[in-house]
Amino acid sequence: MKNKKILRIIPIGGLGEVGKNMTLYEYGNNILIVDAGIMFPENDMLGIDYIIPDFEHYLKDKRDHVRGIVFTHGHEDHIGAIQHLLEMVNAPIFATKLTLGLLEVKLNRHGMLAKADLRPVNAGDQVQIGPFTVDFFHVCHSIPDGVGLGIDTPAGLVVHTGDYKFDHTPVDNWPTDYAKLAEFAQRGVLALLSDSTNATDTGWTPSERIIDDGLDQVFSAARGRILVATFASLISRMQQVASAAERHGRKIAFTGRSMVENMNMARELGYVDFPEKLVVTLDQALSMPDDQVVLMCTGSQGEPRSIMGRLANGTNQKFNVREGDTIVLSSQPIPGNEEPVFRIINQLFRRGADVIYESIAPIHVSGHASQEEIKLLLHLVKPKYLIPIHGELRMLKQHAKLAQEVGVPKENIYVVENGQIIELVDGKLRLGERIPGDYLFVDGSGVGDVDRSIVRERETLSQDGIIVVNLAVDGQTGQLRGEPQILSRGFILAEELEALLEGLKTKLNQTVRDANGNLEKQVLRTVKSFLYEETKRNPFIFVNINRD
Amino acid sequence: MKNKKILRIIPIGGLGEVGKNMTLYEYGNNILIVDAGIMFPENDMLGIDYIIPDFEHYLKDKRDHVRGIVFTHGHEDHIGAIQHLLEMVNAPIFATKLTLGLLEVKLNRHGMLAKADLRPVNAGDQVQIGPFTVDFFHVCHSIPDGVGLGIDTPAGLVVHTGDYKFDHTPVDNWPTDYAKLAEFAQRGVLALLSDSTNATDTGWTPSERIIDDGLDQVFSAARGRILVATFASLISRMQQVASAAERHGRKIAFTGRSMVENMNMARELGYVDFPEKLVVTLDQALSMPDDQVVLMCTGSQGEPRSIMGRLANGTNQKFNVREGDTIVLSSQPIPGNEEPVFRIINQLFRRGADVIYESIAPIHVSGHASQEEIKLLLHLVKPKYLIPIHGELRMLKQHAKLAQEVGVPKENIYVVENGQIIELVDGKLRLGERIPGDYLFVDGSGVGDVDRSIVRERETLSQDGIIVVNLAVDGQTGQLRGEPQILSRGFILAEELEALLEGLKTKLNQTVRDANGNLEKQVLRTVKSFLYEETKRNPFIFVNINRD
Repeated sequence: MKNKKILRIIPIGGLGEVGKNMTLYEYGNNILIVDAGIMFPENDMLGIDYIIPDFEHYLKDKRDHVRGIVFTHGHEDHIGAIQHLLEMVNAPIFATKLTLGLLEVKLNRHGMLAKADLRPVNAGDQVQIGPFTVDFFHVCHSIPDGVGLGIDTPAGLVVHTGDYKFDHTPVDNWPTDYAKLAEFAQRGVLALLSDSTNATDTGWTPSERIIDDGLDQVFSAARGRILVATFASLISRMQQVASAAERHGRKIAFTGRSMVENMNMARELGYVDFPEKLVVTLDQALSMPDDQVVLMCTGSQGEPRSIMGRLANGTNQKFNVREGDTIVLSSQPIPGNEEPVFRIINQLFRRGADVIYESIAPIHVSGHASQEEIKLLLHLVKPKYLIPIHGELRMLKQHAKLAQEVGVPKENIYVVENGQIIELVDGKLRLGERIPGDYLFVDGSGVGDVDRSIVRERETLSQDGIIVVNLAVDGQTGQLRGEPQILSRGFILAEELEALLEGLKTKLNQTVRDANGNLEKQVLRTVKSFLYEETKRNPFIFVNINRD
Repeated sequence: MKNKKILRIIPIGGLGEVGKNMTLYEYGNNILIVDAGIMFPENDMLGIDYIIPDFEHYLKDKRDHVRGIVFTHGHEDHIGAIQHLLEMVNAPIFATKLTLGLLEVKLNRHGMLAKADLRPVNAGDQVQIGPFTVDFFHVCHSIPDGVGLGIDTPAGLVVHTGDYKFDHTPVDNWPTDYAKLAEFAQRGVLALLSDSTNATDTGWTPSERIIDDGLDQVFSAARGRILVATFASLISRMQQVASAAERHGRKIAFTGRSMVENMNMARELGYVDFPEKLVVTLDQALSMPDDQVVLMCTGSQGEPRSIMGRLANGTNQKFNVREGDTIVLSSQPIPGNEEPVFRIINQLFRRGADVIYESIAPIHVSGHASQEEIKLLLHLVKPKYLIPIHGELRMLKQHAKLAQEVGVPKENIYVVENGQIIELVDGKLRLGERIPGDYLFVDGSGVGDVDRSIVRERETLSQDGIIVVNLAVDGQTGQLRGEPQILSRGFILAEELEALLEGLKTKLNQTVRDANGNLEKQVLRTVKSFLYEETKRNPFIFVNINRD
């Protein structure tokens, strides 16, 4: 029965980032799912709303094997695909209170709350989930109540960090659980899977606490209203901004559905704590003197439909940005999102606001461990094998270099990509098969009905636009009846196209007159070569011929 | 005649960046053009090749007033639109030797070299161009032979820096001309227009010289081939890499048309200097032992068709990346370009190379002045007025804050946008009118025949694709003849669409049967609402109805 003692680890999906959005642990006929998050599309993934891990491929014949779903923390890239996962898998969900709160908000929106079996755990708990003995240990991150996991099976103990940093002065005064990490080391850690997001950043990630000083500076200098934008899930930032408002004698109003929902939930659960009279409604805030209010909203990523996006565009309903406003973007552009974020900053400046953003003031810090923290983790946990996760390949490679520097033998470091199955057996690591399928596009109501080929088609359409050519051909004579009808979209300006049409129509008349064989193909060729000749462009061309 | 003593300054075009690509100086009936560069499109400017300043608007009635075109240095964002400008304006071109060399390469490609009146100047020269007395003074930047300009007219002396930094140990041992800046201050500078690119960066930009150490580290560690990618215009980087190759006993091969052309030109003019036997051809390099060669190529910006892009995709013809190769990207992603650059880095890692890039090693530095340098410039030049240029609005605003810190009165700092005319008269600055038109898209062979409205159409096409519906309607009965023909592109996968078609066809039959009034519109509405209902998507729909 030796073969039974195999633990299989399967990092699934995630756009470029290995094991970020979902990882499966499989022991015999038992599967433990860690996280179920989404990723946002890259700039050239046209029309895609978001991306989910393609768990269907591996789980379709094994949905009854799933013993539990465990979440490390409440960010979208770790919980955002829960509604898709629950459509397929029915298993209890284990998470800390705040993470469960955020899951509830989300499931409620999708009408799936009743169906979910939610089981709260506390950091420090040990929970038996099928054959998996799971230790939940506290980690610092940019959201409270984050945990890492010790996952023990007869095949050995694996430590899975989730997103973490070693903040010595966290906002909630709850540092990462060093003792538990050391205890794991004593028990003997066969493999460590840990966060590589900041593996290329030297030093130590600054504490969230420094943001207090940054906010104090900004609040002291501001003479008018203060608007602070951040992520709706950055619960500790809400606390910091509210406390800063209190210190500077201002009231605070939260605005935007997800921010208000999350704030209320976090307040009920006790993750934020501020006096009743500090918080006012948006309407109240707007009727108060400018120097007595702080407005907190979303839109720090340049999303055009967010409040900050609408303020930048001048299309917000309830209020506008005006001269004298101080706007704080307490966040960092998500990679690839720099252009829209900086565009919004420029627009807000243009409207007369003073805009404070990460490059010019300490009003945001990363939630991930930098190089010295990554090395500390390795020394604390002392794993036999290291599998860098959470990061693009270049970050995993850098993580591997760091691990070698602190003495992990090169041959014990496995940089793998999503879909690569890792097997732990008899205290050894070996690579299993590579499963196909990594992630699925979600677009509108569809999951997976748009793939890379469709996105490539969209890219073609977006390069030079389209031309639709309608011809009526006399069935008797084979000649054109009437004028060719030519429509375009996204090609060139109407008057420029108009100027080309005479020449094109002459060519089309010729083509039809001289045609033999496939008329559609010949017309297509004529239009294509004519337009390329005249404009050096290749629009997508539809030809439609009616014969009668 | 008082009114004659007005100097008008007109920053033109440039995507978001003020006065970056072109600035006009106008005194009476005389115009001096400073720079004529291009910008690269933002990610959502679909299908656009590049962008040029819309100089046509202002110059169309004044083309005979242009007395000269002056270039500050040879980067694309300052010289890249020369061929478009020369189609409209015939005036002598003044630039230093290397800049002229790069202009010649470019004009030659466009068959316009014969037409151009090129006049070499040296840093330190004073040249009379119409009523403009122009002092060319040396500045350090990431390309040799850069100059700033002192532009004197009876309306006063203006200093225009171009791109600059205060490198104390430049590769060519030629620091920025501090003495000339101080001399300008003695003469009295009415207005300073200076580079704001790095106004949000604290401290002092590192010297280009530190790259030597970075390269030495990489070259010492490399066991196999070394490939270095950078911009074709980074002449000093070619020198540094070649010198590093020599120090480490390797030969160097340059590859890629623009890099080879620029290298040969720079070598002829004496801007790079290395022994004849150091340089080998690509074919020679490929036949030598791996640890004896360095290949230098373009593609550091993730361009898919560049050599580095083809190597990453495995589509390069002459050679492939292989295990053991060390690849150095000696550049920084252009803002907005991070995704394709990091994608290429990941692909190169996947092919077994060790990739060294700016975030993990000192193998690139910025060419622009940081905050302390910007302040030094202000102290040296002592201008009455400051007009921050070269940067997005947020950078200009930061430049303005820095200037206030060093004592420039707030009311003497003018943050303006492109098209805003500045008038200097009687020793005072006043704002003139704002001219419309800022930049033009260049797409294929067309300049300005694609505008923002066409780009928006392309965006629509790219979101959910297109559907073309062809119906034949019997002229007698008003009923459908045959099946509706439905084609799609970029919408959803063919098999998913197939599954919808039955339902759509039934709806279409109904619509045609019950139609009264505009049948096209009613069909369009049917298709649109059906597809939205079924997929929550809004593809662009073309309806074509043939009646007979």
